[in-house]
Amino acid sequence: MEHLTDFLKNAKAAAHVMSVLPGKRRSAVLNEMAQALLAQKETILKANAEDMKNAEAAGLSEAMCDRLLLNDKRLEEMATALCEIAALRDPVGRVLDGWVTDDGLKIEKVAVPIGVVGVIYESRPNVTADVAALCFKSGNVAILKGGKEAICSNTAIAAVLQSVLKANDLPEAAIALLPDGSREAVGWMVQQDRYLDLIVPRGGEALIKFVSENATVPVVKHDKGVCHLYVHIGADYKTTERVAINAKVQRPSACNAIETLLIDEKIAPAFLPRLKKAFDEAGTKLRGCEKTCAQIVIDPASEADWDEEYLSNTLAIKMVAGIDEAIAHIHRHGSSHSEAIVTTNHAAAEQFLNRVDAACVYVNASTRFTDGGQFGFGAEVGISTNKLHARGPMGVSELTTYKFQIYGDGQVRK
Amino acid sequence: MEHLTDFLKNAKAAAHVMSVLPGKRRSAVLNEMAQALLAQKETILKANAEDMKNAEAAGLSEAMCDRLLLNDKRLEEMATALCEIAALRDPVGRVLDGWVTDDGLKIEKVAVPIGVVGVIYESRPNVTADVAALCFKSGNVAILKGGKEAICSNTAIAAVLQSVLKANDLPEAAIALLPDGSREAVGWMVQQDRYLDLIVPRGGEALIKFVSENATVPVVKHDKGVCHLYVHIGADYKTTERVAINAKVQRPSACNAIETLLIDEKIAPAFLPRLKKAFDEAGTKLRGCEKTCAQIVIDPASEADWDEEYLSNTLAIKMVAGIDEAIAHIHRHGSSHSEAIVTTNHAAAEQFLNRVDAACVYVNASTRFTDGGQFGFGAEVGISTNKLHARGPMGVSELTTYKFQIYGDGQVRK
Repeated sequence: MEHLTDFLKNAKAAAHVMSVLPGKRRSAVLNEMAQALLAQKETILKANAEDMKNAEAAGLSEAMCDRLLLNDKRLEEMATALCEIAALRDPVGRVLDGWVTDDGLKIEKVAVPIGVVGVIYESRPNVTADVAALCFKSGNVAILKGGKEAICSNTAIAAVLQSVLKANDLPEAAIALLPDGSREAVGWMVQQDRYLDLIVPRGGEALIKFVSENATVPVVKHDKGVCHLYVHIGADYKTTERVAINAKVQRPSACNAIETLLIDEKIAPAFLPRLKKAFDEAGTKLRGCEKTCAQIVIDPASEADWDEEYLSNTLAIKMVAGIDEAIAHIHRHGSSHSEAIVTTNHAAAEQFLNRVDAACVYVNASTRFTDGGQFGFGAEVGISTNKLHARGPMGVSELTTYKFQIYGDGQVRK
Repeated sequence: MEHLTDFLKNAKAAAHVMSVLPGKRRSAVLNEMAQALLAQKETILKANAEDMKNAEAAGLSEAMCDRLLLNDKRLEEMATALCEIAALRDPVGRVLDGWVTDDGLKIEKVAVPIGVVGVIYESRPNVTADVAALCFKSGNVAILKGGKEAICSNTAIAAVLQSVLKANDLPEAAIALLPDGSREAVGWMVQQDRYLDLIVPRGGEALIKFVSENATVPVVKHDKGVCHLYVHIGADYKTTERVAINAKVQRPSACNAIETLLIDEKIAPAFLPRLKKAFDEAGTKLRGCEKTCAQIVIDPASEADWDEEYLSNTLAIKMVAGIDEAIAHIHRHGSSHSEAIVTTNHAAAEQFLNRVDAACVYVNASTRFTDGGQFGFGAEVGISTNKLHARGPMGVSELTTYKFQIYGDGQVRK
């Protein structure tokens, strides 16, 4: 892996340059990158056409091909996203805490870039520009590994970004595609903790398992979402229907869509027939526990359904005796991503918020809001299902760590 | 490993109880634990005598035996530490950030316990009480694995703490020693990410390497410290001597002691003879680079010296051309633990603080201050050499993560 050792050494060297690059320059360079993407439109679209041709030849599904496609509008959106990231408040240098010790040392806890960040992702070529921009904005070096189906588009986009780095006398290694995308190369890279500071895998279960099992570098996972909506006995029907339909149907393939609806058995007889009607109109396939199937005529759910991330317009429904059973079910089957309760009862709302162990816990709102853009982070590197470092949507702040800067005037320890 | 699966399941169940235990009760229980340690003094000292007997039979060094020894005074210190931890501000429930989105969702980022925390450590039995208390204070479940030389003392201490849990109707699994301390058991445990949320290894390089390579659970390492003191051209001699002697000599076996002194070649002729005299008086063995040896008569340093953590009263000295060479040396050989500059020059101080990539960067103060107690954290689980989650001294705040609690009134995503 000698060719990759040099590649990582260059990345580490670039990280030292990036860590002292003023925020104003980082923003200015990002705006130039946005312009360059538009100026080099023809080259990028030509590369994308090559990917599209290969995708069709390989028989990729229509949905996959659509995700892969770039056009004028999508390139403009990509450029706009870069400008938005450039305009965010600089996450580097924030003083997170500070105090003076009994010895008179002034301690400041200051946000600093993480260093070299590897991101592994799939299909959409705009992720290449987004992730590169988020890492650059936060003073990090980005090592990107996209899917092989988008290799021509990703290479063209990275080349444009690197040309801007070069024109600004900045190391091109600050934004680089991993030159060897083989499984062996990835497996080797995630063990190079001397050069790599963080690895973010976004993708299927197999990828995440592979990275987690092989990495010695810290991993922030963007894993699956098995999310629930719990309809409490104190729920208002209209809110229930609006939130449930949105959380399932608005984009069933997203990780923040719900998979299971838990409903209090005391209101189930009144709510279930109306909910069935609404879900039928939305084209949702329903599966229910035994008690649910006794109320409405739907397919029975098996035990495996409670752990399933459908990624499609399918919903499992389970009746529960109350909030304790609902929370126990969530802790047993959920993936600690996004969980919601619908209720008008204040105590139940607070109990749910406090007891449920998940990145995002909602009262009377759709789980679909778990998203860097919706949270106001500008954009996101991913949605962390880790408990440590970053949890939930990861924006530029989550791409920083901290150090302690300590000012003394000759203090020594007694 | 079936006996350990049940053990971890109980730990996870206890974590759900701990996560909603009010801070006031956590503090009260800790104060009771402090009292119980004193009340059960005889039992603990008897168990410790057993460890001491085995240690002597096994021919452990005098230093090791002293670390292992408990007596009335040390037990009282242990109890006092528990009361101090009880008195700390509750780290759980702090609202770290909060805002309202364009959709009118109120988002609060709230500190919550991490969950189940495994800590692997060596020798000193007081670590058992300290770490258990820090985890308990922060609402976590502690799984403790101490060294086998302290097994009787650790078992006795844990039993006392558990008796207080039991008397308070709290799950005894909230503070537990790993029932099987074999390498196989540890290797298995660090892969149980379903039950374990964090593992903190504190100890020798072999342990840390073993845990890092085998863990799928997130690891916060307490690794070695190769720390430097850089004597800038603008340094004042008196401060240099005071800080240098303290940073090396006050406790050479600590990870925050310095291993290498870097000195600007322009002031070296004036400073080195005086520093040699001071270090000779302190009994420090000096090794120097070629240029240093041309100024003072000391042993020559080899290339390997620059990467060495001596853990003894030995210091390597290297002359550098200026701040760039000093920082490059630190980045090449340092372990990103604690780094210091002595200077009267403001610009040099700021440059060093900003450019050096380490957990703690000091101006005109000893690196020996990198310590939870000295930082005002009360006590510490360890000193993290990770870049992520926690960096530097880890107190109770660093034993929390966060979740987003989101208040809506029926919002759905457009």
